[in-house]
Parts: sequence; structure tokens; C-alpha cells
Amino acid sequence: MQAYPVLVMNGPNLGYLGRRQPEIYGSQGMDQVPGMVQRVLGVEADRVALSFFQSNSEGALIDRLEQAYEQGCAGIVLNAGAYTHTSLALADCLAWVRIPTVEVHISNILARAEGMRHESLLARHCVGLVAGFGVSGYALAVQALLARLDALE
Amino acid sequence: MQAYPVLVMNGPNLGYLGRRQPEIYGSQGMDQVPGMVQRVLGVEADRVALSFFQSNSEGALIDRLEQAYEQGCAGIVLNAGAYTHTSLALADCLAWVRIPTVEVHISNILARAEGMRHESLLARHCVGLVAGFGVSGYALAVQALLARLDALE
Amino acid sequence: MQAYPVLVMNGPNLGYLGRRQPEIYGSQGMDQVPGMVQRVLGVEADRVALSFFQSNSEGALIDRLEQAYEQGCAGIVLNAGAYTHTSLALADCLAWVRIPTVEVHISNILARAEGMRHESLLARHCVGLVAGFGVSGYALAVQALLARLDALE
Amino acid sequence: MQAYPVLVMNGPNLGYLGRRQPEIYGSQGMDQVPGMVQRVLGVEADRVALSFFQSNSEGALIDRLEQAYEQGCAGIVLNAGAYTHTSLALADCLAWVRIPTVEVHISNILARAEGMRHESLLARHCVGLVAGFGVSGYALAVQALLARLDALE
Amino acid sequence: MQAYPVLVMNGPNLGYLGRRQPEIYGSQGMDQVPGMVQRVLGVEADRVALSFFQSNSEGALIDRLEQAYEQGCAGIVLNAGAYTHTSLALADCLAWVRIPTVEVHISNILARAEGMRHESLLARHCVGLVAGFGVSGYALAVQALLARLDALE
Amino acid sequence: MQAYPVLVMNGPNLGYLGRRQPEIYGSQGMDQVPGMVQRVLGVEADRVALSFFQSNSEGALIDRLEQAYEQGCAGIVLNAGAYTHTSLALADCLAWVRIPTVEVHISNILARAEGMRHESLLARHCVGLVAGFGVSGYALAVQALLARLDALE
Amino acid sequence: MQAYPVLVMNGPNLGYLGRRQPEIYGSQGMDQVPGMVQRVLGVEADRVALSFFQSNSEGALIDRLEQAYEQGCAGIVLNAGAYTHTSLALADCLAWVRIPTVEVHISNILARAEGMRHESLLARHCVGLVAGFGVSGYALAVQALLARLDALE
Amino acid sequence: MQAYPVLVMNGPNLGYLGRRQPEIYGSQGMDQVPGMVQRVLGVEADRVALSFFQSNSEGALIDRLEQAYEQGCAGIVLNAGAYTHTSLALADCLAWVRIPTVEVHISNILARAEGMRHESLLARHCVGLVAGFGVSGYALAVQALLARLDALE
Amino acid sequence: MQAYPVLVMNGPNLGYLGRRQPEIYGSQGMDQVPGMVQRVLGVEADRVALSFFQSNSEGALIDRLEQAYEQGCAGIVLNAGAYTHTSLALADCLAWVRIPTVEVHISNILARAEGMRHESLLARHCVGLVAGFGVSGYALAVQALLARLDALE
Amino acid sequence: MQAYPVLVMNGPNLGYLGRRQPEIYGSQGMDQVPGMVQRVLGVEADRVALSFFQSNSEGALIDRLEQAYEQGCAGIVLNAGAYTHTSLALADCLAWVRIPTVEVHISNILARAEGMRHESLLARHCVGLVAGFGVSGYALAVQALLARLDALE
Amino acid sequence: MQAYPVLVMNGPNLGYLGRRQPEIYGSQGMDQVPGMVQRVLGVEADRVALSFFQSNSEGALIDRLEQAYEQGCAGIVLNAGAYTHTSLALADCLAWVRIPTVEVHISNILARAEGMRHESLLARHCVGLVAGFGVSGYALAVQALLARLDALE
Amino acid sequence: MQAYPVLVMNGPNLGYLGRRQPEIYGSQGMDQVPGMVQRVLGVEADRVALSFFQSNSEGALIDRLEQAYEQGCAGIVLNAGAYTHTSLALADCLAWVRIPTVEVHISNILARAEGMRHESLLARHCVGLVAGFGVSGYALAVQALLARLDALE
Repeated sequence: MQAYPVLVMNGPNLGYLGRRQPEIYGSQGMDQVPGMVQRVLGVEADRVALSFFQSNSEGALIDRLEQAYEQGCAGIVLNAGAYTHTSLALADCLAWVRIPTVEVHISNILARAEGMRHESLLARHCVGLVAGFGVSGYALAVQALLARLDALE
Repeated sequence: MQAYPVLVMNGPNLGYLGRRQPEIYGSQGMDQVPGMVQRVLGVEADRVALSFFQSNSEGALIDRLEQAYEQGCAGIVLNAGAYTHTSLALADCLAWVRIPTVEVHISNILARAEGMRHESLLARHCVGLVAGFGVSGYALAVQALLARLDALE
Repeated sequence: MQAYPVLVMNGPNLGYLGRRQPEIYGSQGMDQVPGMVQRVLGVEADRVALSFFQSNSEGALIDRLEQAYEQGCAGIVLNAGAYTHTSLALADCLAWVRIPTVEVHISNILARAEGMRHESLLARHCVGLVAGFGVSGYALAVQALLARLDALE
Repeated sequence: MQAYPVLVMNGPNLGYLGRRQPEIYGSQGMDQVPGMVQRVLGVEADRVALSFFQSNSEGALIDRLEQAYEQGCAGIVLNAGAYTHTSLALADCLAWVRIPTVEVHISNILARAEGMRHESLLARHCVGLVAGFGVSGYALAVQALLARLDALE
Repeated sequence: MQAYPVLVMNGPNLGYLGRRQPEIYGSQGMDQVPGMVQRVLGVEADRVALSFFQSNSEGALIDRLEQAYEQGCAGIVLNAGAYTHTSLALADCLAWVRIPTVEVHISNILARAEGMRHESLLARHCVGLVAGFGVSGYALAVQALLARLDALE
Repeated sequence: MQAYPVLVMNGPNLGYLGRRQPEIYGSQGMDQVPGMVQRVLGVEADRVALSFFQSNSEGALIDRLEQAYEQGCAGIVLNAGAYTHTSLALADCLAWVRIPTVEVHISNILARAEGMRHESLLARHCVGLVAGFGVSGYALAVQALLARLDALE
Repeated sequence: MQAYPVLVMNGPNLGYLGRRQPEIYGSQGMDQVPGMVQRVLGVEADRVALSFFQSNSEGALIDRLEQAYEQGCAGIVLNAGAYTHTSLALADCLAWVRIPTVEVHISNILARAEGMRHESLLARHCVGLVAGFGVSGYALAVQALLARLDALE
Repeated sequence: MQAYPVLVMNGPNLGYLGRRQPEIYGSQGMDQVPGMVQRVLGVEADRVALSFFQSNSEGALIDRLEQAYEQGCAGIVLNAGAYTHTSLALADCLAWVRIPTVEVHISNILARAEGMRHESLLARHCVGLVAGFGVSGYALAVQALLARLDALE
Repeated sequence: MQAYPVLVMNGPNLGYLGRRQPEIYGSQGMDQVPGMVQRVLGVEADRVALSFFQSNSEGALIDRLEQAYEQGCAGIVLNAGAYTHTSLALADCLAWVRIPTVEVHISNILARAEGMRHESLLARHCVGLVAGFGVSGYALAVQALLARLDALE
Repeated sequence: MQAYPVLVMNGPNLGYLGRRQPEIYGSQGMDQVPGMVQRVLGVEADRVALSFFQSNSEGALIDRLEQAYEQGCAGIVLNAGAYTHTSLALADCLAWVRIPTVEVHISNILARAEGMRHESLLARHCVGLVAGFGVSGYALAVQALLARLDALE
Repeated sequence: MQAYPVLVMNGPNLGYLGRRQPEIYGSQGMDQVPGMVQRVLGVEADRVALSFFQSNSEGALIDRLEQAYEQGCAGIVLNAGAYTHTSLALADCLAWVRIPTVEVHISNILARAEGMRHESLLARHCVGLVAGFGVSGYALAVQALLARLDALE
Repeated sequence: MQAYPVLVMNGPNLGYLGRRQPEIYGSQGMDQVPGMVQRVLGVEADRVALSFFQSNSEGALIDRLEQAYEQGCAGIVLNAGAYTHTSLALADCLAWVRIPTVEVHISNILARAEGMRHESLLARHCVGLVAGFGVSGYALAVQALLARLDALE
């Protein structure tokens, strides 16, 4: 049985994870995600083949999702950063590529002071949401996505 | 008499027209637009010289409009997709390049369930609006634009 | 093959089209619509049999739609004027008579200064929308309606 | 003892009850109301003398209410359709004719998806409200109105 | 010098002025207006030729305004009742007939408890507003209109 | 044929019906409901087996609905008092127990001065609504519920 | 019979009437008010004894109203300028001094573009409103106030 | 090293998980949570000692949280159901007991149609949020909570 | 002369007063209230007979108010905690038991950062409000209540 | 030990307390405050040295607060009347003079019908709030202020 | 060539600049403005003749602007403090005196936490805005004003 | 002493400054900024080393800010054009790179007719704001930034 190709995609300002505002976003970077996935999934870790992408540009993120669609990507773990709250175009893209997607946020967006961060334009096109657990949230998301992909088989 | 150079410009998620959510957007693609224009305009079809552009990036769409301004483009048929509702920057660009523009939407945006799709930031810088007639709306828009360009002569 | 019976219906203040605020609504009247339809449709023009109705009264417009329903009218081109934004009763009527309807507006309603004119209560019961092209918008609407009626056969 | 003269008045789009969107409004028409009243009131049915009126026009409904006022009508059963939510003029009329009125709706307006249908401009001038029970709601309304009229004696 | 033809037009529920809710609207009827105008204008009263119109129907009021436009009516005194707050169609009509109009209300609408009565859709197409002085407000309005008409000569 | 088990359930502050604010809620208590049902249903009264429950606690009302679900209760007449407007939990419960429910209110909630009382969180999970007829509204509700239960057979 | 003492009070920016933005407020000043009152009231003009006050300060206006209360002032003609829309304190003062007051505005406030000018905090403590007739509105207000004072005798 | 005492607490309508609206909430019940925790945590599963509590009553949930505070509970996994969106009292309780809490929802609340379900009053007192993964979300939450508790040591 | 029976009632999260968030709520508990009342009232302290009640449950608080009504309780000092802002049911109860009630809050609710805490659903059924003075506010409330009760005699 | 200098400051329309709308504000005036303070404080009354100030002018109230700051005033009892709800300038002043302030209102502002009176711009710069107890509220406020000043020592 | 007479005007709470909340407003006072102007303008400093005015009273600020108008003042540097956000009367005054005005704020008003401080009623009557640079912002404003006055010559 | 490296960054539609809508944005281009800085700073001009960047793309602007962060840029002068009002992503970037930034706008954004232009998502991460002075605002911003950088040393 083949591993599921899974795209872990990060939006704006997430290229500096670990160096950016550590009091909010923690000091761990994306380079720790594969190890974390290994730890939480154990022997099951081989069943997902992760690829990573980050861009500050809304258009480039959509381009990449379209490419994922062409390549038969099985699932997406998406932290769209601020575009979560402003990009209807990204939401429209998730709506049509129809790849199972889990939304991740480093901080607990519903607990942030700015009301603008309490709505996600993307949520209605996502399986579920993991927020507030720092970088380890990506590993939880991969785990949840794997269960969903198995259920869809 | 020379043909009017007209730019048909599409925004995010419109590169896959015909393959994307056919239950909303239909199964026709942009490649059918020239034939449709030919049909609706008949012998008048030679009076417009169409060029096409699509991008998922807000900035690239603005770049292209600035280029159109430099090249003396006579008119624009614009389907800005989701940027219709979120891009004040695109609206600002239409405001200053001052090229007659007809707004097109594949679906009837005023009839969509999400209130966010009922406002167009671009409308006040456009001649008019054609929405809900699928890909054939582009041909109607070219037709309406041609009448306007003749009236401006 | 028989012509489609199509009703072109105008709401309040549209009886004086051509004389009313020409700087907004232009100087052309409804009497020019048949000729315009002839021009845009060419030989296809015989495939629609147009009848016209105008009233300033919300109730009379509903009465006329009910009559159209009884008479087996095939399609409607509707400019409901200000009732577009205030008449839930007219919207309810379109909902139940279920005759394919194209909404027309002389001016580009989404570009008008008053926010109240940016919403259409009727849109969700209409095939599509043509706005901003003056009286020639009626001809575009007939053209779009004809294509829709053919598709429904 | 004389029967109470009671006016059963219907607003826009209710002339086709039974034929209009049966999935929302059911397949029963107003012609079944007298029989239903007979059934629910039994021997008491003779104590009300029902007359019926329907119009799609806001003005005609107000005219009819003024006529009821002149004729000494004892009570009103009113389904104002969409005017329930938009007609301040009808509300003003109920306020001054001061005839005991029961508001009826075929569907459960508070349960409809559109928020606009959750408010009734008329309610504050009505004794009470019966909604969601189809055409049989008219009979319930007559029954409730009769009790109120007896209490007022 | 000829008298100015002036139309005094009343909207819904104003046919019963003097009998309707006297605690709000007073006990005087429209039949007292000519005498009041006589009193406040004195010898100047001959300079206006008043005609009166009342209807409960929005469409009929618009029809009458269009007729006034055709007849060369010089000025209008308008109490649109509840349509003041709901009729965009009536507002559109005032916008295009462009006859100097003074808005009158029997009660002080800005002081009424319902917020809905604090906005007038008609005001931006009217010279001015007189509210709260009962039926004598019509006479004040005629007086103010006369001054305006003289100034326009 | 067996009688339908029907639960008549009252929410907060309804334990003192008849003694609480009689100018709003009248002077009749719940003890009069069985007699009223007898009167309006006549010989049909035996076809419903009423049980009664009142609690001031949101949780206890949900507990009781779950119990009704377990016991195969056929229908519910529910006056949730203030919880009508604030209890999303009660609404969620009605959504899943899926027992046909008629909403009752002693006063005409849509006519109350506080806007908060114009929305019902429960309505979308109820068959219909009876409001404004005092305690006799419970009998009307039983009657309407019976018709619905017969129709569902 | 003694003349009624009437205070004509102006708020901020009205000390320069006639020189301030004549395109909005006209070129007439307060010095023309006595002559206008004379003209509209004729022999009745002796029945009011006018005094005038203007201040840019909210506190001074309240001080003056308290003084009017002490002096037994019979009526007030008040143009509170921008304080109309912002001064709850002035509204509170009118509420307690309980002197019959007519509100005047030079321009038609309900027709101004800024929504903020459509509400009057003072209206509910005033007899009525005269707006849009320039400085001559003060004379109309005195006339209306006189009628009211006579009616109160 | 001792196991962390962890309370898994469910609010209203969650006592019937697995039987309630399976199309939204799935067919798995809370009885499957311990097995799931076992699976995702493996040998680490012994490091948490789970206890379970469910109540439909807001007050009982607060009582139980206060008890947890007294007993030195180390962490909480909380699905407050509808109280998530309405219970300020529950939020106040989390604020003062200051026990690390992970919020769980069976469905993806940010993706639900009702806007009311997009805000969580509890979020600002919670470590993070897991939503949309059915009953397995509880296991993910325990896993995330354990990491947080280790980090706090 | 007999002492007035007065109920001091606390809502959710107030059972731990003195231990809960002392930086907001202070370190004094309810056990200090009787001594404080003694101090502020002096010899008058014998004129009130205090009883105390606390519950986290909305329903239990309403039950207790109904009991107070039955027992002829003379006055209430009420700190409803978070239910102040969310419980329409508690407000309804105060409305009908009609026992003079003084509202107390430990912190100055109008000064709290969350707007939700600036409105009190209970206020319109209370004599007055004391907020921001910690536990000593209860004693001030008793003092104010006593004056009110004397005035009512 | 020296008495605390305390300023009792009243805003607009409070100069006529006792004469102004007694049905809302009672018939007691500020001259009764010293006696009331004497009564509630007993021998402690000598520990505060009260001075009084009233003005209808926002600016004069700010001037007086600045003077209090210069003079080393220890505490303020402030009833800002309508400025409570409209004066951001007064709020700014309290913010910088940083003198402990207790807010007083004669009536229970949170219970008033106008929503505008439910917010206090001043509250976030005040120790606490006493409302609804008439003139005796000033004495309660002095009492509460004294406790606060002692605590600050 | 003569120096431009320029008025530097400060609103409420700005008389204590340098002593008031130095963490927000800094420790520099208005006395440093002339030196700063000297420094930034160099030899050009002689081309402006500065006068200074401060008041806590809205009315006094308007009086001073009217005086500036009479005296032929060439330009204004205005920091209206809290009146920036609440004084429509001050805005009206700037509108009619038509003296070029630069708006200054010590702190960056758009960055303040309270939304109320993000709107300026004055801005539409001002040339431009300088905010966030402490007292030195006045010197920048004088510099910008001088350039504008030169351009107007 | 070394010059401060300062980045002057422009957002969408600012590449054509001087040619774009000169009636709003003036006819000066960015090429004039160095000369202006030279003029206003005089000998101090050598203390800043300016570099310039413009892009129509939100992502490219964020990329450039991240690069500035890497290069140790000392300060930023930023005119983000329409992204000022729509780009939460750009705001997030300013929040984490933490380089002192002065916001510039060519026109006075608070004075523009569209409310959408009155809020700046960026402001809370900027030192201050200069708006309305055309291209010379960039020079004022550099001047203000230099003072701030000196103060931070």
C-alpha cells in the first residue's frame, strides 16, 4: 500500500516560524514537524509522504493548490495565516479542488483579542480545525487527516 | 478602421473554468469565448482584437492593467473572481487607468447565498455588469463593450 | 417551431424612460427595444414573441406575473425599478411562478451611491443580471434568455 | 344573537394557494376554510359570518380594511403574506381601525431561513399569531378570534 | 399674474384624517385646509390654486405625480404617510419629476418612538419639511412653498 | 386505536401562571388546560394522553425531553418562556429528539416591546407557533398537534 | 391681553448666519427675522414678544434655558445647530423645563448627506419641526408656536 | 511518576452521542474514547487518569469544575456543546479555576451555517481547540493536553 | 416593629468569593458581610434579618426567588454574576415577584473590557445598582434597600 | 489626622435637583447631602471635607477637575449627568488627574429606556458606581470613597 | 513679504501637556514648540507668526476660530483632543471659516485601542494629518502648513 | 557615525505616482523625494541612506519586509496604498519584524468619502502617521523617523 501524498502548506509570515514573536508563536520551526509526525504516528508515519510549501503571496498559494490538484495530492494541512480571515479567493480554491484539508493555527485564533481573527473564511471547506498547540498542531493535524483519508477509502 | 484592442482578464480560480465546480460554473471553458463572440457579433467580430490573461495573484492583475494602460488598450472585460469582493487595490487601479470596463461573472453573484458576494468593490469603476449566464456572458460583455466604445468615439 | 412568448415587464417610473433623468437613464425609450432585439438577434429574432407591460403599482406587477403564469409565458425580462430593492412580495411571486427571468437595470445598480440599491431581493429567483447598458440592456437580456430557453428544451 | 361579521383577508401571492409552491404552502386552497371552520367550531360555527378578500396590492388591502371599519366588521383574520414584513402602511391601518385581528401564516415564519421573515410589522396591532399549520391555521384563527370577541362583549 | 397650480397629496391612511387616532393625529380633517390657507396667506391666497388627492396605493400616488408633471403643476405639498419611510419608488418619482415639493407630517416624526419613522426616503428630493403641527402644517407648507416658487421665478 | 402520548412542557416562571403579572399573562392557570382541550376537541379528546412538566432549569427541561424520547412520546406542546430566546441547548435538543413540537406563548411575543423577544431559537425545530391567546393557546396547540400527528401516520 | 414672551435661541456657528456657507445656509441673517414675523403674522405680530440669544457653548445654551424657565418664558424657537445631533444634555434640559419648543433648521437636515444629521436628540421634547426654508423658517416656527400657545390657554 | 488526573467533561445533548443526529455527530459514543486514547498515546496512555462527566445543566457543569479545582485536577478536556456559545458563567468559571483546558467539538463549529456557532465564549480561557474530527477529537485533545502539562512541569 | 426579612442572593462562581481571582474580586468572602452590615448600620442593623443563598444554576436561583415570594421576603440584594448579562429568565422572575431588589457587583461592570458586561438584563427590575466596591458593596446595598423599604411603608 | 478634601461635582441640569422632573429625580436637593453624609458616617463624618461644584458646561467641569488636581483633592464624587454618555473629554480628564472617583446617578441608568444611557464613558476611570437611590446615593458614594481612601493610605 | 499669521490651537486636557500621562503623551510641553519650529524651518521660521490658544470648552474653541476668521488668520494647526471624535459643532465651524488647517495628534490615534478614536469628525475639513510624533508633530504641522500656504498664493 | 539604512516602500498603484489621478494624488512622482528630503533635512540628510521599493503584490511587499529584517534595516517609511485597509498579512509582518515604521498617505485618508479608508490595519504597528501632504509627506516622514531613531539610540 502506497503512502498518501500530503501537502503541508503555510501562508504569509510563517516562513520565519520560530523566530517570529516567540511569545505568541513559540520558538519551534517547521523543521521539527517531520520528527513530531514520526513521534505521534509511530510505525504509521510511513503511510504519509509529506511535502512542504510556504509563500507570502495569496496567488502563489492558489497556484500551489491547483498544482496539488493536478498531481493527485491526497490531503492538505493548511495554515493560511492572516489569509484565513481575508482571502475569499483561497476559500474558493479549496471549494473546487476538493482535497480533504485540515486547518491549523499556531495560536488559539478564537481566543485572540481581535474579533477579525475569530472568523475563518476557509473553515467551511475544511474537515476540521486544530488551534493553539504551537508547531505540534501540525502533527496532530496530519494524524487527524490520516484517519479521515482511511475512512474515505 | 482599426479593431479595438480589448483585454479579457480573469482572476483567481478561473484558470480551470470548465473543470471547476461545473454545477455552479458550467462545463464550458474560456477557449469557447472567441467562437461565441464570433457568433454574437457576426461580421462585426473583426472590430475587436481580443487578448486574454488569467492570474491567481492580485498584484499580477494590477500589473497587467498597468501594462494595458501603457499599450493603449481600448476596453476591458473583467471577471475578477473573489477579488471582486475583497480587492480595494484592484478597484483603485481601475479608477486611475480609466479604460472602459465591463464586469462579468459566471454565476449570478447577487443570488449567491453568501452576503459577501453581493457587493462589488469594482462596480463603481465599471460601465456595467453581466452575471449569471455562464461563459457566454463574456460574449455579451464584449458586445456591450463594443457599443460603448463606438458611442465614445 | 413556435416563437417563445416573452414578457418584458417594467416597474415604477419606467413609463417615462427616455424623458426621465437622461443623465442617468439615457434618452432612449422602450419603443427602441424591438429594433435593438432585431439587430442583436438577426434571423433568430423571430424565435421570440415579445409583449410589454409597465406599471407603477407593486400589486399590478404581481397580477401580471400571475397572468403570465396562466398564459404559459416562456420567459421574462424584468426591470422592477425601485421595487427591486423593496418588494419581497414580487420576489415571492417570481419564486412560485417559476418562469425563467432575466433581471435588467438601465444603470449599474452596484455602482450607485446609495447602498440600498446594491441588494436585489429578486436576484435569487432570476437566471442572471444585465445592468448599466441603458435600454440596449433589454436586447442583451432577451438574447441571454433565448439561450437559456433553448438549453432548457 | 347575531353572528359576528368576520373578514378573512389574504395578501399578495395567496390567490393561488394550493397551486403555489406546495412543498412550502401545501396543496389545500382557501375554498377548504369554511368546511374546516365548520369542523372545529361545530354548532358554534353559525356564530361567525365569514367574508373573504384577496389582493396583491397593498393599497387595496388598506382600502378593504377601511371598508370593514365602515361596515362594523367585528374581527379580522389576516394573512398579509410578504407585506407582513414590509408594509408599515398596513400596520398603520390596523392601528387606527382597531378591529380585533388574528395574524395567520401558512408556514412557520420564525423558522424560515431569511431573517427578514422573522419580524412582523403587524404583530403589535394583532391579538395573536397562528403560524405553520397550513390552511387549517385559518380555522384555528377563527376559533381564537371568536373566543376573544366573546370576552370583549 | 396667474395662480400657481399646487397639488396637495396624501398617502395611506390619511383619507380618514380627523377620525383616525385623534390622540396622535388630532380631530381636524383635510376639509379645513383651504380655510387655513386663506387665513395664513390672506390676500396672497389667490396666488395658489390647490387641488387635492389621496390614495392608499403607492402606484396610484406615482401615477398622480406623473400626471402632475404632464399638467405643469408648479409645486407639491406631500404627506406620504408610512410610504415616507418605505417607498423608494415614490422617492425615485420625485427625483425625476423635479417639481418643488414640501414634505408635511401631522405628528413630529423625529419624536415618534419607532426608529423606522426617523428616516425619510423622500427628504432628499424635497425643499423642506414641516412636522408636528397637525392639519395646520399643510397651510404652513403651502406658505413656504409659495415663497420658494416666487424665489424660483 | 391508542391515544397519542403528548407532553405539555413549561419553562421558567410558568409555574405561577395565573398569579404572575395577570395584566400580561391573564388569570388562568395550567389546571384549566385539560378542560379546555376537552371543550375544543370534544369526542376527539380521548385521542391524546396529556402529561405535564414544568421546570425553571434549562438542564431539567433537556433531561425531560430526553426522557420523552426514550418513552416514545408522540408530540410536544412547549412554552419555553424566556429560554425561547436564549437557549441554544434546548434548540439543539429539539433538533435531535425529532418529536413533533408546537411552540406556545401566552402573550404575542412578536408584539412585545423588547426586540429580544421577537426571535425564537426553537422555531426552526417546531411544526408551528401559537401566540397571544393566553392559556387557551395550549388547547389550540394540542388541536393543531393532533392534526399533524394524524397526517404523519 | 399680554404678548407671549418667546425666546429665539441659536446654537453653534449660527452667529454668522448670512455670511457662513451661503450656498447651504442662504445669505439672510437673523436681523431679518423680526420683519419676517411681522409679515407672516400681520396684526397678530404684537402677540409675541421676541428675545434673541446665540451661543457656541452647549453649557451657555442650557444656562439660558434655565433662565427662561425662571423668567416664565412662554415658548421657544430653537435651532441648536450641530448640538441637535450630539447634545443629550440639551435634550435633558428641554425635558425638564417643559416650555413648548419648536425646532428649526435652516437646511433640510433629513436630506443632508451625512446620516448623523438625520437624527435629532431634541425632537422628542419639541412640539414640531420646520426645516429647509432658510431664515424664513424662524417666522414659520413663531407662527406655529403661537397657534400652539393659544391652544394651550 | 504519577498519572495526571484529567476530567473529560461534556455539556448538553452530549449524553446521547452516537445516537443523536449521526449525519452531523457520527455514530461513535463516548465509550470509545478510552480505547482511542490508548491507541494514540500507546505506552504513554498510563500517564493520564481520565474521569468522565456529562450534564445538561449549566450550573452542574460549573459545580463539577469547582469540584475539580478542589480535587487538584490537572487538566480538562471540555466539549460544552451549545453552552460554548451562550454561557458566560461557564467562561467565568474556567477563568478562575485556572486548570489547563482543551476545547473539543465533534463538528467543525467554524464551518456550521449558523453564525452564532462561530464564536466561543470559552476559547479565551482555553489552551487550544480541536474541532471537526468526531469522537476521535477527544483523543487528540488528551494528547495535546498531555504535551502542555509536561511543558508546564 | 419587626425586622425586614432580606435575602442576599449570589449567582454562579460567587461561592468561592475571596479565593477566586483576588486581583479582580478581592480577598474578602461573604462571611464578612454580616459584620460589615453591622458596622454601616449601627443600631439599625437589627431592622434587617438577612438570609443567604448561592447557586451556580439559573433554575435554582429562580426557584429560590419564587420561594422568597411565597415567604413574604421584603427585599433582595442580588449579585447574579454572569447571569446578569445572559439570563432573561431571571429578569422575568424579578419582574413578576415584584420584591424590591438592589443589584450588586463586586467589580465595576461598566468599566470591564468586555462590552457584554456593560448591559444588565436585570437592571430594569431593580431599585438601583452598587458596583465596584468589593464585598463591602453588599453592605451598602443593604443600607440602600433599608431606606427604600422604609419609604415604601 | 486631617480630613480628606473631597469634591462633589455635578454636571448639566443638576443645578435644579429637587425641582427638575421629581417623578424621575425625586424632590430632594443637594442641600440635603451634608446632613445625609452626617447620618450615614456618624462620627466618621469629620474625616471628609466636602466641597461642591455644579456646571452645565463640559469645559468648566474639566477646568474644575484640573483645579482639584492642583489643590491636592483626595477624592471625587461625580454625577456628570448627560455628559456621562457623551463626553470623551471628561473621561480623558479623569484618566490623567488620577484622583479616586465614585460615579453617582440619581436614577438607575442601566434601567432607563434609552440604550444611550446604558454606557458610561467615565466608568473605566472610576472606582465604582452607585445608581438609582436618589440624592442619598451621594452619601453612599462618600461612604464608599472614604473606605477606598483609607485602603490607599 | 509678511509672515503668515498662524494659530496653534489645543483642545481639552492639553493645557497640561508634559505633565499629563507622560507614558502616552510624552514629557514635552507646548513651550517647546517655538524652538522646534525654529529648528525644522531654519531661516524660513520668520515666515510664520505663531499665536497659541488652549481651552477645555468646545464653545470657546469655536469662538476663537470665529475670531481667527475675523482677523484674517492664514492657517491653523489644530489638536482638538477628544473633541476630534465628538464635536460636530467644531467640524461645522472649520467648514465655514475655510482657513487651511492641519490636524495634529500627540499619539497615533488610529493605533489607539478604542475604536472611537479612529474616526475624526474634523478630517474632512483639514488639509492633512500628523499623528504619533509627540509635541514635535506641531513643528511638522507648521512646516506642512507653510508649504500649503505658499502653494495657495 | 553611520547613516541609518531606511527603506521607503510603496504598495499597489503607487508606481505611477504623478501620472495617476493628479486631482487626488498630485503631479509629483517619487523621483522628487530625495531632493525633498535633502531640503527638509539640510546637513542632516547624510544621516539616512534611503532605498526604494514598489510592488503591486501583497506577497512581494511582505517578502521585501522580511529581507529588510535580514539586512538590519533601521526604519521604514510605508505607503501601503489600498493594502492599508485590507491586508492583515502585511500588518502581521510589521508586528514581527519590529522595525520602526512611519505610515504615509498622499491624500488625507480620514477625509475620504469611503468609510473603508478611515481604518488602517497597519497603524497599531507604526510609530505615527503623515497624511494629506502629497509626495512631500514622504520627506516629513523621513524627518520624523530620524528623530525617532535618534531617540531609540
